[in-house]
Amino acid sequence: MTDANPILAEMVRGNWVENRYRGAFAVVDADGRIIASAGDISRPIFPRSAVKSMQALAMVTADSIGRFGLSDEDLALACASHRGEDVHVEGVTHFLEELGLSKDDLECGAHAPGDSEARRQLRERHEAPSALHNNCSGKHSGMLSVALAIGAPTLGYVNRDHPVQVRVRSAIEAVIGEKLTEGRCGTDGCSIPTWAAPIEAFARGFARMATGKGLPHDLAAGAQRIFDAATRHPHLVAGKEQLDTVVMEAFGGRIMQKGGAEGVQCGAIRDKGWGYAIKCDDGNMDASRAMVAALLLAIADPDEKQAEVLQRWSVQTVKNVRGLDVGTVRAVEGVWA
Amino acid sequence: MTDANPILAEMVRGNWVENRYRGAFAVVDADGRIIASAGDISRPIFPRSAVKSMQALAMVTADSIGRFGLSDEDLALACASHRGEDVHVEGVTHFLEELGLSKDDLECGAHAPGDSEARRQLRERHEAPSALHNNCSGKHSGMLSVALAIGAPTLGYVNRDHPVQVRVRSAIEAVIGEKLTEGRCGTDGCSIPTWAAPIEAFARGFARMATGKGLPHDLAAGAQRIFDAATRHPHLVAGKEQLDTVVMEAFGGRIMQKGGAEGVQCGAIRDKGWGYAIKCDDGNMDASRAMVAALLLAIADPDEKQAEVLQRWSVQTVKNVRGLDVGTVRAVEGVWA
Repeated sequence: MTDANPILAEMVRGNWVENRYRGAFAVVDADGRIIASAGDISRPIFPRSAVKSMQALAMVTADSIGRFGLSDEDLALACASHRGEDVHVEGVTHFLEELGLSKDDLECGAHAPGDSEARRQLRERHEAPSALHNNCSGKHSGMLSVALAIGAPTLGYVNRDHPVQVRVRSAIEAVIGEKLTEGRCGTDGCSIPTWAAPIEAFARGFARMATGKGLPHDLAAGAQRIFDAATRHPHLVAGKEQLDTVVMEAFGGRIMQKGGAEGVQCGAIRDKGWGYAIKCDDGNMDASRAMVAALLLAIADPDEKQAEVLQRWSVQTVKNVRGLDVGTVRAVEGVWA
Repeated sequence: MTDANPILAEMVRGNWVENRYRGAFAVVDADGRIIASAGDISRPIFPRSAVKSMQALAMVTADSIGRFGLSDEDLALACASHRGEDVHVEGVTHFLEELGLSKDDLECGAHAPGDSEARRQLRERHEAPSALHNNCSGKHSGMLSVALAIGAPTLGYVNRDHPVQVRVRSAIEAVIGEKLTEGRCGTDGCSIPTWAAPIEAFARGFARMATGKGLPHDLAAGAQRIFDAATRHPHLVAGKEQLDTVVMEAFGGRIMQKGGAEGVQCGAIRDKGWGYAIKCDDGNMDASRAMVAALLLAIADPDEKQAEVLQRWSVQTVKNVRGLDVGTVRAVEGVWA
């Protein structure tokens, strides 16, 4: 037996707990005050796609937003882990056209769309998925806009030492108030670097982006623009029936919410000025979704309709092959506020 | 911070640990002596598909094996979580024909084959997957043979109170030496009941099946027949490039190995008379495969070639969308023997 983060969610099958999901979370204000937390929030984690809105700040510091007259839709796609629906593929195609580029400039690689309807359509047309369908294609378009704006070559923009990634890294460091180091670095699913930092630092970063507090003027204004764009176009940020989308839709601008691979959930309760970050120790995504839903139920003052949306995610039905309800993935109670 | 099972595997991305997988395991002989263990091995877990060979013992007590002259291939399929390759679908079709039944009698439901080549072929033929492709279709054929042998209706054979499931439950109880209770019961992916029991009880059950010790004569002989069938036809038990298959192929009858959903791994080192059971707390399958590979490396006296096979599973490469090596899922060291 060893010390560990607390159990924050479990899977129940029939009348018995089948799986246990441990993790840590922090809710922090822009001054770094801890509003709520559990587990080891000083542990550095890879934030993965949960910090795409922070990575998008390089578009602010390089002013590719002004240079190319980028729209809210473009910015929402830059923050997105999208599902490859038509609206996403068309949006990213348009974004790249605005830059005078095409899908051939994307270095994220191709994967099948997350959306089953989109996958079916591709198969029926006998088309292979392209880099446009990659859930990160909007983020990569944003990074390409940074390369163009600073006069760097677009080729190799995913590499750790490329001027684009140096800017992305600096933007994240500025908002989280921590140095990102090569001793805690990996390669993300879409081939850009991902940098580990403490859970509480990411939560504080989201609080700063929500409030502008502690940020230079351009980053403060840019962060507000990015959060506005994402929360006004939640469908572009994820897709139909996805947690990020339905939560942002339900809260109409009050909440910025974004998941990341391997059980990360980050965001901000904008009117309260709080940021939050959650990491499920074992990377389970369903469990991390149950966790963030339970957290928002506890701290975000949801109205009845918002609470209903969150409850659907805090207790998720598990179905078997024949579609029978066989259990639930659910957040534990009593640890969130 | 709370007490917890130890970390038995982790995912490393770049140079930093991204995920931690906790769990418990027991290696036990037929008398219940603990050879090796870690974590809480008295915790009841759902064994899921890892105990298909125990469930198949109902075919022994009902003597459907003798009644229908079932072959080793049929028995291997009864123990299988197969990938829906042609050889599996044809085998199960033949099994059902021997019983005078067809796929319409299966109550497991249909799902797409686990094997990508089989999925592709189905799509090209514009065919929907059938219950034959369900990874449990061989087990269900075995259960149908039990219904026929005991003169019970085949309809509803998946239900908890059906005479078939009563027999399956009794067979498991006989080998693990524990009562299975309705207070720890759930429905499996394929709609039959799954019963939770302590990890060490499943390990002891596999030791008894391997040795016959502590079992009535018919179960002892039947268990040997079932393990022989499975280890002689490892491809039927899982499929190409699957851990269960390649490990059993490498050990040529010395090891019975079977995975189950949500991070369960069970089996027996037959010549040593040891059974083992592993549960990954959070249900991660890759992590559970790393765990069982590390366990067998430590306790199964592998030769050089067998060790090579196990090493490929104890440290698994994680690739990203572009096929770059970005990390590993690997078992921890120093806890296995």
